[in-house]
Amino acid sequence: MKRLHQQVEFLLEIDKLKTIFRRTRLLHADRFENDAEHSWHLALAAMVLAEYANEETDMGKVIAMVLVHDLVEIYAGDTYCYDEEGARDKKQREEAAADRIFGLLPKEQGEKMRALWEEFEGGQTPEARFANAVDRFQPVLFNLRTGGRSWEENGITRKQVDARVAPIALGSKRLWQYINQLLDEAVDQGILQKGD
Amino acid sequence: MKRLHQQVEFLLEIDKLKTIFRRTRLLHADRFENDAEHSWHLALAAMVLAEYANEETDMGKVIAMVLVHDLVEIYAGDTYCYDEEGARDKKQREEAAADRIFGLLPKEQGEKMRALWEEFEGGQTPEARFANAVDRFQPVLFNLRTGGRSWEENGITRKQVDARVAPIALGSKRLWQYINQLLDEAVDQGILQKGD
Repeated sequence: MKRLHQQVEFLLEIDKLKTIFRRTRLLHADRFENDAEHSWHLALAAMVLAEYANEETDMGKVIAMVLVHDLVEIYAGDTYCYDEEGARDKKQREEAAADRIFGLLPKEQGEKMRALWEEFEGGQTPEARFANAVDRFQPVLFNLRTGGRSWEENGITRKQVDARVAPIALGSKRLWQYINQLLDEAVDQGILQKGD
Repeated sequence: MKRLHQQVEFLLEIDKLKTIFRRTRLLHADRFENDAEHSWHLALAAMVLAEYANEETDMGKVIAMVLVHDLVEIYAGDTYCYDEEGARDKKQREEAAADRIFGLLPKEQGEKMRALWEEFEGGQTPEARFANAVDRFQPVLFNLRTGGRSWEENGITRKQVDARVAPIALGSKRLWQYINQLLDEAVDQGILQKGD
């Protein structure tokens, strides 16, 4: 009973992920995307785009990984991917958050889930490379479809986006080529500034 | 290129799931839960509660199933689970919606995903039984934790909740026992009316 009770408390606590907002705007409602919705969308992206992985990849693991990858933001908050200031202590804040959130689960289960998050952060396995690729692919796609509004609001240029999307190639050359073509078009259309 | 373009259009279209609202209230914000968040939460529940499945169950498949199980609601809307009127043409509305949403994908991929949804709806496999169990377990848990507010707003009694939670036992006797104990306590505390 204690074990199930712990697991239920964890499931109730992670409801908070629905209140952590990103800088990405939704396509069909005038608001920002929250982390829970984002995680769901990445899991679907992994399912649908699986065939474009560079390497033989365990997609069940990729899906589990993207479903848990943002849980630490419940306590550490969302650090905007172009925020250099916030990036400095991001690792430290997220490690402390991981202790807290995964610590709610029965020990071996919490460790297993934390290992998934660490694998994602490390980016050193085929699964982590593909999970990171979809995590970087999807927001850029959204920003393109909302006319670059989030980039304009935050003064982001093509140069910065290029650095952000570069790791997509490590997980999927095909998705990286695709997004680059769209970014070229966005610069031509004036949706995204070229920058220095 | 056409294939990837189709897949991307599907991923952009399903963003609409974030605008379909359920009757369940969030625990940490004063608003209703949307279908995308709900699907994410069910996937986590399947991961964490896997050990309580009655039968040997492929959890990767359960997770894929819960991630796609509400996609038809993009066009068919959310039918409140205690809405007898809405239940009458639910199947018809959802079949038409399935044609439309899964039809956006390349043919064999759309058929595969639709088959997952149909398996969930059919409830005849170990995976479908467990997926349905968590889909019925989680909202009841939420309603209990928000003081039965959603039940009160909609005049729902223990008798109706009992009928709703009964299929949990088909997927997990353990989770069914657990939720029944909590429901007993809720009736004792006056959070849930017993009904006729």
